[in-house]
Amino acid sequence: MAIATGIVGAAGFAGVELTRLILRHPEFELRVVTSNELAGSSVASEYPGFTGATDLAFSAHDDPALDACDLVFLAVPHTAAMAMAPRLVERGATVVDLSADFRLKDPAVYEQWYATPHTQTDLLARAAFGLPELFPDDLARAAVDRAEGKGVLVACAGCYPTATSLAAAPAVRAGLAADGAPVVVDAISGVTGAGKRASARTHFCFADENLEAYGVATHRHTPEIEQILGLDGRLVFTPHLAPLNRGLLSTVNIPLAVDVADDAAAVLDRYRAFYRDAPFVQVLDAGLMPKTSSVVGTNYAHIGLAVNERARMLIAVCAIDNLAKGAAGQAVQCANAVWGMPQTCGLEPIAVPV
Amino acid sequence: MAIATGIVGAAGFAGVELTRLILRHPEFELRVVTSNELAGSSVASEYPGFTGATDLAFSAHDDPALDACDLVFLAVPHTAAMAMAPRLVERGATVVDLSADFRLKDPAVYEQWYATPHTQTDLLARAAFGLPELFPDDLARAAVDRAEGKGVLVACAGCYPTATSLAAAPAVRAGLAADGAPVVVDAISGVTGAGKRASARTHFCFADENLEAYGVATHRHTPEIEQILGLDGRLVFTPHLAPLNRGLLSTVNIPLAVDVADDAAAVLDRYRAFYRDAPFVQVLDAGLMPKTSSVVGTNYAHIGLAVNERARMLIAVCAIDNLAKGAAGQAVQCANAVWGMPQTCGLEPIAVPV
Amino acid sequence: MAIATGIVGAAGFAGVELTRLILRHPEFELRVVTSNELAGSSVASEYPGFTGATDLAFSAHDDPALDACDLVFLAVPHTAAMAMAPRLVERGATVVDLSADFRLKDPAVYEQWYATPHTQTDLLARAAFGLPELFPDDLARAAVDRAEGKGVLVACAGCYPTATSLAAAPAVRAGLAADGAPVVVDAISGVTGAGKRASARTHFCFADENLEAYGVATHRHTPEIEQILGLDGRLVFTPHLAPLNRGLLSTVNIPLAVDVADDAAAVLDRYRAFYRDAPFVQVLDAGLMPKTSSVVGTNYAHIGLAVNERARMLIAVCAIDNLAKGAAGQAVQCANAVWGMPQTCGLEPIAVPV
Amino acid sequence: MAIATGIVGAAGFAGVELTRLILRHPEFELRVVTSNELAGSSVASEYPGFTGATDLAFSAHDDPALDACDLVFLAVPHTAAMAMAPRLVERGATVVDLSADFRLKDPAVYEQWYATPHTQTDLLARAAFGLPELFPDDLARAAVDRAEGKGVLVACAGCYPTATSLAAAPAVRAGLAADGAPVVVDAISGVTGAGKRASARTHFCFADENLEAYGVATHRHTPEIEQILGLDGRLVFTPHLAPLNRGLLSTVNIPLAVDVADDAAAVLDRYRAFYRDAPFVQVLDAGLMPKTSSVVGTNYAHIGLAVNERARMLIAVCAIDNLAKGAAGQAVQCANAVWGMPQTCGLEPIAVPV
Repeated sequence: MAIATGIVGAAGFAGVELTRLILRHPEFELRVVTSNELAGSSVASEYPGFTGATDLAFSAHDDPALDACDLVFLAVPHTAAMAMAPRLVERGATVVDLSADFRLKDPAVYEQWYATPHTQTDLLARAAFGLPELFPDDLARAAVDRAEGKGVLVACAGCYPTATSLAAAPAVRAGLAADGAPVVVDAISGVTGAGKRASARTHFCFADENLEAYGVATHRHTPEIEQILGLDGRLVFTPHLAPLNRGLLSTVNIPLAVDVADDAAAVLDRYRAFYRDAPFVQVLDAGLMPKTSSVVGTNYAHIGLAVNERARMLIAVCAIDNLAKGAAGQAVQCANAVWGMPQTCGLEPIAVPV
Repeated sequence: MAIATGIVGAAGFAGVELTRLILRHPEFELRVVTSNELAGSSVASEYPGFTGATDLAFSAHDDPALDACDLVFLAVPHTAAMAMAPRLVERGATVVDLSADFRLKDPAVYEQWYATPHTQTDLLARAAFGLPELFPDDLARAAVDRAEGKGVLVACAGCYPTATSLAAAPAVRAGLAADGAPVVVDAISGVTGAGKRASARTHFCFADENLEAYGVATHRHTPEIEQILGLDGRLVFTPHLAPLNRGLLSTVNIPLAVDVADDAAAVLDRYRAFYRDAPFVQVLDAGLMPKTSSVVGTNYAHIGLAVNERARMLIAVCAIDNLAKGAAGQAVQCANAVWGMPQTCGLEPIAVPV
Repeated sequence: MAIATGIVGAAGFAGVELTRLILRHPEFELRVVTSNELAGSSVASEYPGFTGATDLAFSAHDDPALDACDLVFLAVPHTAAMAMAPRLVERGATVVDLSADFRLKDPAVYEQWYATPHTQTDLLARAAFGLPELFPDDLARAAVDRAEGKGVLVACAGCYPTATSLAAAPAVRAGLAADGAPVVVDAISGVTGAGKRASARTHFCFADENLEAYGVATHRHTPEIEQILGLDGRLVFTPHLAPLNRGLLSTVNIPLAVDVADDAAAVLDRYRAFYRDAPFVQVLDAGLMPKTSSVVGTNYAHIGLAVNERARMLIAVCAIDNLAKGAAGQAVQCANAVWGMPQTCGLEPIAVPV
Repeated sequence: MAIATGIVGAAGFAGVELTRLILRHPEFELRVVTSNELAGSSVASEYPGFTGATDLAFSAHDDPALDACDLVFLAVPHTAAMAMAPRLVERGATVVDLSADFRLKDPAVYEQWYATPHTQTDLLARAAFGLPELFPDDLARAAVDRAEGKGVLVACAGCYPTATSLAAAPAVRAGLAADGAPVVVDAISGVTGAGKRASARTHFCFADENLEAYGVATHRHTPEIEQILGLDGRLVFTPHLAPLNRGLLSTVNIPLAVDVADDAAAVLDRYRAFYRDAPFVQVLDAGLMPKTSSVVGTNYAHIGLAVNERARMLIAVCAIDNLAKGAAGQAVQCANAVWGMPQTCGLEPIAVPV
């Protein structure tokens, strides 16, 4: 099989990681990579790690060659994705959207957090949510539609929502979390999470040797996490920036319900059972906590668990690569699912060890 | 005035930062720096940044020259400090201890967390707690004793307890925190916090480009923070390691009591009033969050505040330099207080800007 | 084909990178990984990035399972390799040695620089030099021997010699270098080059935010580079350490012979012709200089060229990943050659782009 | 004494470091800091490390308050400094220029390398060269002029020229260097050297975990170094970028003249004699090489020496802080000299040790 594939917005950090992954993929064949800003330049001139590996050059977003693609990834900002997706889906393509445009099920919530109305509510209603470990049925339905020749839209979960929800879902879905109590999430990301645009925030000399919180009480991933976990208004989410390229660690504090009898070992068993069939989730042995360096470059999520018995709190920590499982890797995983391949197809099995 | 000063354990990271600070101090005169491991070596041979600035060499911990010091800093591991302090205090010295040995008021709690009995409970009962912004009376009493020629012991607060308590105390002491609800603290430290000993944890290639949580639900600063804030059994504290040298950021999540009417602006006013006379604490303007790079090399603490109205949570974030306000700087600040100088004496006023 | 493969010294940085590469290799099947220090531990417990990817555990260096391996990589210190190699070669294995023991053709030079006599001079004389782009005949001969069932030893070039020689060889072999004039090489390495042992040098807090030269006029790669390039006594080689994990950049200053008419463009053409058939060497376009980040995780070498006309100096700069093309990747490339596979077999085609 | 001081271009990296140094200086009183881009903003809002330390705000470059300053630092790009300096000098101010505009004595050389004619050749002829260790007479003359009430212009040496010339001058001036042979300089800088402007080069994600050479055979510091050392056309200078904030290491390869009898120890003695009275230069003991971390935040230069006997090459390595001795610190040192203070006045004596 050689599935014609395009990437819209291939010059950004998620887009170029997708480019790398699709070029290595045994079934997806990369035909088009677009960037309005860099149209005409070769991928290798912008990212010299591609020298010798591909002669592809960026074309503009309106490149007609996209019409010949059966699979299109959208790695463009929100609102841009909303404008592009409908036409692609209508003509029967599989669209995997990495933006936030089709993640929030309630258009009013979208408008509230993104300060712009949602203009594609029909398509929104039909979008599959792209977090395979937690919403496998969405992708299974999309796979059926795709097999019947229909256009399909997958809205991939964001980076913080992915790590946070993988850490919390087994406990929350099993009813371990105390009703009404806030779930506190403090997460840390490397600087690739801030995107490719050069700015004071992404300047080496301001990011290096620095730690800071940002978007406190206002980050747009808040409603997405609340939606995934059913935590309406109960999430306290604070992201932080640290001086590394890739890596995202989410520390999730889940207050245990009064009647929960699980100790740490029982919680661990529960998580392992939950992720029994998830090839990319590793629940670590008791006493171990995940390191982001163990997953960088791969689509893995590593989860560590501890229980603070005195405060009756489950602490679940999840490490991912924000550009892989938090973006491009997850997008490929979703595309694999929609096209009936093993989820792991074309994805790196082992992180670079040091 | 030239106060004869010694540093026991001057070769570790806190000890060498103390060495630097005392050498620059206008009133404290550094006479002795000890290190059993490096006895005989010059400070400059171990830390070449001292080349040309001092000819001091390390002597062993039992150097009799310590007996001539009016001011002695202990920068040795716990239990070692407990063994050394009594004799020094008895002969009338001011002892500023950076270890954990005299921080926990209840010897049983000490034994529980440090797995060894406390052998100096009398001295423990008399120790001043060294966190000047929150326990000024302790230092005022010590200053009176010192002026009367008595020996004095100051137990400096740890790095995480300092940042966390400065962030939380104004709210907790004012009764803003909900009774019985857990306070969740997620803190991040640079690698100097892990100490000078070479190990897998401190190896560049394992620390670089990595984030991880450690000591989850077991870190020894937990009872210290609980003691300072009066949070018996209600603290959930998770420290994290990030790839930078100096810097500690503590994100403190304080559930607001039901009847609290303060909005974010009112909380900010409250904090500013609380720290009105504290020369080293800067409460940032609304909307700003602290950066550790803004305080590195200085004794400052920067605090940022936000309120999550939906979840009724105050998020207070504090940035310090773990080796300065979190260790050596605070020790000098305490010594200044005990010796009747301005708290800021000899401490750097401005961080290196980039 | 499934070639039984063992790695002796698999827990060090070169060894673990080899482990990763062999696990992903389509033809080499990893049977044994040894480490005397970690015998009994799983690879994943030491390097958690292997979690879920392999159940292999380290055994001791004398593991009899090595006897069943057709291909054995030695990633042990010098002298240890010298002790192990003969028995393995004698029984017919292909031995790929990453140590320095069989690189220097003259045992006297070895003794002079490594301060120990060479005890395996017969095997030394038969060893193939493992730098495929510059010594293809060595590997071709080894491939013939191997195909005839004979044992074979490949002595892989060191990291600095590889980058430096790839940068210099096309000019030096073509006679562009002035006779008798010194060739000055200043190279920079990431900290993985200093190895896994925890020490002051590899401590995060001493390596971070620091640059230094080391081994000035004494580094053991000096005679190896001189041997490869035929620069007897004319090499001035200064390695430097910089705060990054992987990556090695060698800046080679070659004085042009008086009668050389080549301008920069002519030199570039010459280099491209020289490396026409080398799949891992990319000679960059005029005006471009290599970045180590473009080759990290891959076996590529990127070379940039400039000519200082006033000083009649060719400046050739080469970037490699010190653990890949500088160690494990090159070892796999050599093994591929000996076993008759494409050089690129099992090696990553594209670096992670950010 | 309270010398009214202004900084033009105070928001860039050299300018803000100057701001920090002048605020801490006992004799210079900072009255004006300008930035056209940030006019109206407080220094602390742009660089939060100044919070609480100063209420100064940036004004525009044409702020009339500059007219009341006796001492003005110009930390603006080349050509901008050339336009501003004459009026300030004419009215009797001491102008310390950190740009390249008045460094090159020959206007034709300036025009050749900076691609613009020099419009202030009279002032250029009178400018003192600001590298006190090598051109003390220039500053002594300026001090006399200043004491007589005349305006004075100091053209501070650039960062690479400072480190390189301090490493090379004692050998070159003593005639140790072989006539006509090229001097090869490979230098490495932290990213602050690339300036404050956000760009692909200064983006954290492109600078982190990367090494590269830049400006090969074309860097504008080449003629400046040649002028200082008298190396017309014989300098081969290659700067490199490494992932750290501050720090510059210059490795200088000086071919020894045939008749030079000095061994390494003799060279070391020569250097120590040369710098006997230089408070900021430390020539390290035999066998030691400088680390940039030992000088960061200070005005020190550390120099290490080695001799490669076989290739008859002196390798002199110098570490400085590019923003301190390479820019702002040197400017203060020069201003101290012109105003008759000790060179060390107001400059930090000890680097932060880790």
